Amino acid sequence: MIWLNDAFVEEGPSIDPRDRGFLLGDGLFETLYVEDGRPAFLNAHSARLQGGLNELGINADIGVDFIAKVIADLAMRNNLNKGRAAARLTVTRGSGQRGLVAPPAGEQRPTRLLTITKARAPASELRLVICATRRFSRATSSRFKTLNYLDNVLARNEAAREGADEAIMLNEHGRVACASAANLFIIEDGGDIITPPVEEGVLPGVVRGVIISAALREGIAIEERPVATEELMGKTLFLTNSLIGVIGARLGDERASTVSPLLDFLQSCYAGALRNDLVAFRGDR
Amino acid sequence: MIWLNDAFVEEGPSIDPRDRGFLLGDGLFETLYVEDGRPAFLNAHSARLQGGLNELGINADIGVDFIAKVIADLAMRNNLNKGRAAARLTVTRGSGQRGLVAPPAGEQRPTRLLTITKARAPASELRLVICATRRFSRATSSRFKTLNYLDNVLARNEAAREGADEAIMLNEHGRVACASAANLFIIEDGGDIITPPVEEGVLPGVVRGVIISAALREGIAIEERPVATEELMGKTLFLTNSLIGVIGARLGDERASTVSPLLDFLQSCYAGALRNDLVAFRGDR
Repeated sequence: MIWLNDAFVEEGPSIDPRDRGFLLGDGLFETLYVEDGRPAFLNAHSARLQGGLNELGINADIGVDFIAKVIADLAMRNNLNKGRAAARLTVTRGSGQRGLVAPPAGEQRPTRLLTITKARAPASELRLVICATRRFSRATSSRFKTLNYLDNVLARNEAAREGADEAIMLNEHGRVACASAANLFIIEDGGDIITPPVEEGVLPGVVRGVIISAALREGIAIEERPVATEELMGKTLFLTNSLIGVIGARLGDERASTVSPLLDFLQSCYAGALRNDLVAFRGDR
Repeated sequence: MIWLNDAFVEEGPSIDPRDRGFLLGDGLFETLYVEDGRPAFLNAHSARLQGGLNELGINADIGVDFIAKVIADLAMRNNLNKGRAAARLTVTRGSGQRGLVAPPAGEQRPTRLLTITKARAPASELRLVICATRRFSRATSSRFKTLNYLDNVLARNEAAREGADEAIMLNEHGRVACASAANLFIIEDGGDIITPPVEEGVLPGVVRGVIISAALREGIAIEERPVATEELMGKTLFLTNSLIGVIGARLGDERASTVSPLLDFLQSCYAGALRNDLVAFRGDR
């Protein structure tokens, strides 16, 4: 079952062919990790979504408590209320007339879709390639999690063709941005951690934020700065996103080990933050 | 009525919420001018679509004759078989599992949607503004007519907020690319015509191609070269797309006249090419 515009319905054709999300990519989404029916880091996902809705001028009032309730209900209805699952919340500007001009704000009826699927346990290490498809740091579609994901799809396909798990996308300047569906961190030989700033065309990932906060709190040297591709070579890397959490990665055939006490520590920080968030969540409601 | 995956159906919810066009912008579209049920420049539209399908690796076999037949039939069923109409053909990679990875080619069932709506006669002149939203010349979404149209939507909204009809989008270098839904040409004081090349992040418009061919054939000096924003000031401009054809334009409050014998001549060249194409079309079938 899916949840669409305030109703639980059986999966099947249900989106209007005039939906501007379908026709023009005029919308946003969030992918949330769900454990035992409870979404992780919901406040952060909700804040990012709201920022995007404000930027796009889509007036969809979707409260955090409401999302949590729908996810819990949807998980139950799909027998996913135990174990790992992925929820996707999609919000579009709704249906409109032909052409680019958006309906007046008062006439917009945003489409709100929530789906849930079983999630596998993540791999223990990912193999990366640098792909040809680039991100544009000035684009709204890079700054927010919009439905304009074709370039990321093409990047991921490039990686798959080369037998890799994920694609590193560079920005218009040829510097490192992020992976097709994850953020990238570098553990430098001295133990400092580097990640490109959002201004480099990086999607501001929720787990990325958790890791940066954890590092700052734990006194680990972490810096957001532009990263050249050469800086990835031979380094221990790791990727973050809501479903994989924090995973060691290496570039192509590089023999750089992802065995790193610092990575282990950050993974345990993340696991702790996830536990705290899920417990607080249960406590709240 | 609409045409969806080989069936004529009543308009209404009919797109799978797992459609990758809806979820990821993983698809393409074409907007065609239709007159008395006949699509204009169908060969050019079809070739551009096929180029995009090849680039994206979507295996959807949509022949020119077939599109023409469906458009004629759809126009009839919607009482749009007389006069001006706009047909939109949307092709996506179809439904898929969660995530970016596309289903294997053999398992893809592309979604094919054709809709038709009444088209108004175009305005006689358009007012333009240069907008803040930029295009990225290296993006696949700039080179093909993909479903990733959010930046164009935002650009057009910028124009609407300033009381203008269309938005001029610059590329990542700050040079002129095209309008949110049209190509841009400049008539220089000496009578030369300039338009930015596709490498500047310009969508290769069908009417743009018709105008370039007509100019070359008629011995009019036309050049594709990068254009700085300053070059637009005080000049007679014109926009082209399939629905507006060829229309004079001016920038903001600029008092540059769009009365230009050369523009009149190009408009008559376009009208002739359109007539020829529609007549040849009728003759073919």
